[in-house]
Amino acid sequence: MAIKIHIDTDILEKIGKFELPPTLGFGEVSGPIMASAEFKNGEWSDLSIIPFGPISLYPTAKVFHYAQEIFEGLKAYNYNDNGPLLFRTNENYKRFVRSSERLAMPPIPQELFEKAIESVVSYSYPIMPKRAGESLYLRPLLIATDNIMSVRPSLEYRFFVLTSPSGDYFSSATIGVLIEREQSRAFPGGIGFAKTGGNYAASLMAYKKAKELGLSQTLWLDALEHKYIEELSGMNFFAIINGELHTPELNDTILEGVTRDSLLKLANHNGIKVVERKMAIDDLLRDIKNNHCTEAFACGTAAVVTPLTFLQDANGDRYEFQNQNAPIGMMLKSKLLDIQEGRSSDPFGWTRKVQGASLQ
Amino acid sequence: MAIKIHIDTDILEKIGKFELPPTLGFGEVSGPIMASAEFKNGEWSDLSIIPFGPISLYPTAKVFHYAQEIFEGLKAYNYNDNGPLLFRTNENYKRFVRSSERLAMPPIPQELFEKAIESVVSYSYPIMPKRAGESLYLRPLLIATDNIMSVRPSLEYRFFVLTSPSGDYFSSATIGVLIEREQSRAFPGGIGFAKTGGNYAASLMAYKKAKELGLSQTLWLDALEHKYIEELSGMNFFAIINGELHTPELNDTILEGVTRDSLLKLANHNGIKVVERKMAIDDLLRDIKNNHCTEAFACGTAAVVTPLTFLQDANGDRYEFQNQNAPIGMMLKSKLLDIQEGRSSDPFGWTRKVQGASLQ
Repeated sequence: MAIKIHIDTDILEKIGKFELPPTLGFGEVSGPIMASAEFKNGEWSDLSIIPFGPISLYPTAKVFHYAQEIFEGLKAYNYNDNGPLLFRTNENYKRFVRSSERLAMPPIPQELFEKAIESVVSYSYPIMPKRAGESLYLRPLLIATDNIMSVRPSLEYRFFVLTSPSGDYFSSATIGVLIEREQSRAFPGGIGFAKTGGNYAASLMAYKKAKELGLSQTLWLDALEHKYIEELSGMNFFAIINGELHTPELNDTILEGVTRDSLLKLANHNGIKVVERKMAIDDLLRDIKNNHCTEAFACGTAAVVTPLTFLQDANGDRYEFQNQNAPIGMMLKSKLLDIQEGRSSDPFGWTRKVQGASLQ
Repeated sequence: MAIKIHIDTDILEKIGKFELPPTLGFGEVSGPIMASAEFKNGEWSDLSIIPFGPISLYPTAKVFHYAQEIFEGLKAYNYNDNGPLLFRTNENYKRFVRSSERLAMPPIPQELFEKAIESVVSYSYPIMPKRAGESLYLRPLLIATDNIMSVRPSLEYRFFVLTSPSGDYFSSATIGVLIEREQSRAFPGGIGFAKTGGNYAASLMAYKKAKELGLSQTLWLDALEHKYIEELSGMNFFAIINGELHTPELNDTILEGVTRDSLLKLANHNGIKVVERKMAIDDLLRDIKNNHCTEAFACGTAAVVTPLTFLQDANGDRYEFQNQNAPIGMMLKSKLLDIQEGRSSDPFGWTRKVQGASLQ
């Protein structure tokens, strides 16, 4: 089935009038266009490329009450006019479908998902940021829109691909992380592996607590014993221990990060031993103290690779990493960005070039 | 601080033109007006009573991505023109504030919450259903509306009170319930005690599974051991065992139901022994088999009291209750509705009358 695409007549004007601000931040600037499709009467509509702007929903729409909503995060790159390059969108698609199944939402056809991404990137090409580390952040989103208040899966949905020209996720180079030993983000048999609002909602109070202590992030432990490291909010966790790259093994409470998987493959490719295992927090803290664990970093599409300066308990006990600039993490980041931004060869076949609409 | 209320000029016309359909269902018919207020720059706006209709939000609004959303459910009664009566709104307010704290949202002032409810009920008085068991269902809702995509608590919110003239929650008298032994709804340190979308999102796949087996509801067990009964999706669980009223004791994974609390107080008042305890599912199934447990029922604002016909395991094993019409549950329901609908005295001081706007 070929996807039909409707291009709103205002699109080129919106793109033409858009001015990229000198500093971008992350997710703070909305791009001027978006992709949109609807699911209704058991069928997906055509794809529309329309101006970014408010949408109209009844306040009874299920998304507002029962959080039947899933999203993805990925980036399109145009460093030095090497792009637009897309990165492993197939992985985002697969995760979007896994998320939709867990939330009892209809799986979107891959062609519709990919065409929506390609179309917004193609039309946004003239306004894509071009400096190293910058990108057009893309946010596929599926929300439940039917207006019946009883608790059951929605019969109607709306799909979007939103854009945000973005720079770094963290404004500070120092990332202090609070070990969260009371609250939990996810639990076995729950929705932790899905990219869905409920997981993020559960993390907001811990975020506030971390901020009040002057820290940037939360390190989540397992909900059953509060013993094993799971992830940071929206980012996976990595540590270098005795020169090996350690990360928590996947289970249904950890989001399977595309950046996580890419770093593991890059580490392997570069002769770094990779260990996926259950990581007890107390073992890690001991390894930091005795300098077996020399560095740690967070990874994600938004954050790419961000070195952690220290872990901290709520009582103030602080565990500082010996190598706070995370040299191994930064080496992997550099190799990853070289591929994503088109500076090096792509031995894994991860990237593909999209035709920019202004070139057509 | 006195709350200022702006009444939209269309309100009386909307109410005048509204026709109550002959059959109501639950949450399927939206009332013609709603209350609305905003939180912005650290302050709550005045209250507005406006026509029910679509709202305009950017698709980047946090509620769509991070499920920062909470709600309440309560009813206004006008049986036989005894109303409009409101029931224990103070309990809904307290729970709304507990939910907002867990979700890192600003607590709404009680006067704003109560005035919003009273105003929509007052103006909706002429169109309130009047038959026994019917009510004007009210849905206070608070959603995060700021447009920055990074994961952190929103700086802006919108509050609504929506209405729905409603009848019974369950269309069928036979409520078969699936014991969910794999998935979980909530977990210690999570958001289970808050009335927030993420809990309901987590339940939708189990709802689908129950429906596919021809059952109406899910019985949730604790996430740690899958051993202890917690609740049904959006309803609390009660069983009659050896003539006593048993229900799972509250913890941070169970929603503290206003109907649950009211039934416990009514049971006490009527000389029925109440036992709040950890209830192991296997003990209960044994008690059903040997007829020590004679009946069970679900309770909630929407469902009031609904008898359960049987519990069922995914493998088809079925545990039928001896008294499938739940005589003790129905006696309590009748006493509760007598108070709520103004047919009996109110020894607990639970109800209060609102001035109907058409009488002013």
